[in-house]
Amino acid sequence: MAKRLGKQTIMLESCPSMEGYAAVVSDKEGEGPLGREFDEVGADAYFGEKTWEKAESRIQIKALNRALDKAGVPPSAVDVVFAGDLLNQCIGSAYAMRGTDIPFVGLYGACSTMAEALALAAIFVDGGLAGRAAAVTSSHFCSAERQFRFPLEYGGVRAPTSQWTVTGGGAAIVSAGERGPFIREVCLGRINDLGVRDMNNMGAAMAPAAADTIERYLSDTGAAPEDFDMIFTGDLGFVGSEILLELLERGGVELKKRHMDCGKLIYRREQKVEAGGSGCGCSASVLCSYIANRLRSGEWKNVLFAATGALMSTTSSQQGESIPGIAHLVRLSAGKD
Amino acid sequence: MAKRLGKQTIMLESCPSMEGYAAVVSDKEGEGPLGREFDEVGADAYFGEKTWEKAESRIQIKALNRALDKAGVPPSAVDVVFAGDLLNQCIGSAYAMRGTDIPFVGLYGACSTMAEALALAAIFVDGGLAGRAAAVTSSHFCSAERQFRFPLEYGGVRAPTSQWTVTGGGAAIVSAGERGPFIREVCLGRINDLGVRDMNNMGAAMAPAAADTIERYLSDTGAAPEDFDMIFTGDLGFVGSEILLELLERGGVELKKRHMDCGKLIYRREQKVEAGGSGCGCSASVLCSYIANRLRSGEWKNVLFAATGALMSTTSSQQGESIPGIAHLVRLSAGKD
Repeated sequence: MAKRLGKQTIMLESCPSMEGYAAVVSDKEGEGPLGREFDEVGADAYFGEKTWEKAESRIQIKALNRALDKAGVPPSAVDVVFAGDLLNQCIGSAYAMRGTDIPFVGLYGACSTMAEALALAAIFVDGGLAGRAAAVTSSHFCSAERQFRFPLEYGGVRAPTSQWTVTGGGAAIVSAGERGPFIREVCLGRINDLGVRDMNNMGAAMAPAAADTIERYLSDTGAAPEDFDMIFTGDLGFVGSEILLELLERGGVELKKRHMDCGKLIYRREQKVEAGGSGCGCSASVLCSYIANRLRSGEWKNVLFAATGALMSTTSSQQGESIPGIAHLVRLSAGKD
Repeated sequence: MAKRLGKQTIMLESCPSMEGYAAVVSDKEGEGPLGREFDEVGADAYFGEKTWEKAESRIQIKALNRALDKAGVPPSAVDVVFAGDLLNQCIGSAYAMRGTDIPFVGLYGACSTMAEALALAAIFVDGGLAGRAAAVTSSHFCSAERQFRFPLEYGGVRAPTSQWTVTGGGAAIVSAGERGPFIREVCLGRINDLGVRDMNNMGAAMAPAAADTIERYLSDTGAAPEDFDMIFTGDLGFVGSEILLELLERGGVELKKRHMDCGKLIYRREQKVEAGGSGCGCSASVLCSYIANRLRSGEWKNVLFAATGALMSTTSSQQGESIPGIAHLVRLSAGKD
């Protein structure tokens, strides 16, 4: 049974299990520091498809199938899938899940989608609404560039604060099983908008939301940063991470020693990704490999995962709007104690 | 507490209440047969804003505020809001909810969003995860036309099977209160795609999903069409509704006498809307006025509300893809018995 803690946090007393999880990425991510952690590294960005959008759906299908395999269950054992992505009308997810026959709850949380989906999947399992639930998301550098910025052929110059959309995705199968990681609490975030208008500086736009959700979670639970092996944010990158640490320090929360950002981790700096990785697939692929692996092995006992999203579109930016940010948080532990 | 029924249906034993609800539409919808049912009818499609996209966010804000007023509670009494819309990256919802300070779960279910949001809101209240939860969605003829079809100035000729996107939205505040309508069961749908490729015939693309979800619900619960005063679909319109009835008849389910579609109801045929209304705001504004009013008054005792969505984008259509459909269903009753 779930129990509300404080203002925004939900404790899942049954400790739902991330029974199976998998990350699928493209060659560039495979060449990064986490290359060996991923379940599958594509030879290129096409994954055997004719378009980048179809490749993105293929990534989700592959990640879901691998997560199912690792959980040792067929798709029919999953009662509901929560999925979303960055593409207009979330076609990455809709076309991926079309063939599964699993009831589908479409989400839009931009790059916070993995935490949003995992939180809902865990809530459904905890409440007995689903025997098993899946959380899936993806992003693709090429489909995102042409949708949000320029045609790739144009070869636009990138700003030093811009981030590189990860071509990859992650999937988790959540159940009442006994294999860690376990999902202990979730904290669904509020929209924060401090007026950042620069679409080439998403890290700055999302940092206040990450700070808000992390502060809320710590205040709701009475936990301190020292209680965690690591506190992950999704894709603040190098610029946004600095802002996050500063914002939290002002509120008296010292995160520096425990904080790591998936967008800082996934590429080597010499891979020319400017301020780091981004996209739904960034935090999803890092969670469903590097982070979950270390929790399953017991190397880490207790981790916060706060995925961050920027909720603008090209239309809202062209209309002069600032960029609203959001962060959803999930606490994961190695054991149930 | 929630209980799973059959394969896909979730029964909410606490019977969450649609404590407050409101519908806000534009002048064209106000001139339709349901004109007097709506809480607010705008003088034009701008709602005092400079762009149609901002007008759409304004519709959501107005609908939420009116629903809160009717429930007699402030925004701070709402623990979570589920919202989504048709715009790229769901900016209708993100910019509307930015100012509310309520934890935000972004959804993408195309025109099925009202049922998806209401289902999740009811699940959260039933499970004690939220004291109050809100479900909000919208659509806007002008923002949808220019995003999905042509610039309005182009004056494109419309096909007889095409539908007219409703400029409007709806909001519901769900709580453990004692005022009907009550939310009794929810059935989250699967993606159905029978290969329809015509973006001017969404009703045909969505009808199989509606048939699938309604059949699943009836089979899971053992209910018959005669058990309901009315069975509503979202926005199949005149073309899709015929297909739905035919598909169900083939499976031995006779729906004709009980079926009504929000897209058939919201406009008069002389309003030149071809095959009827569509958009997230279509089923949302009809649910949060006409339908909920008749349940609250007790005129109807028992209603099914199955909102339907078409999950394509312009990109997927340009790439030759067919249109995946989805339908989520909620059962509503006048009393708790």
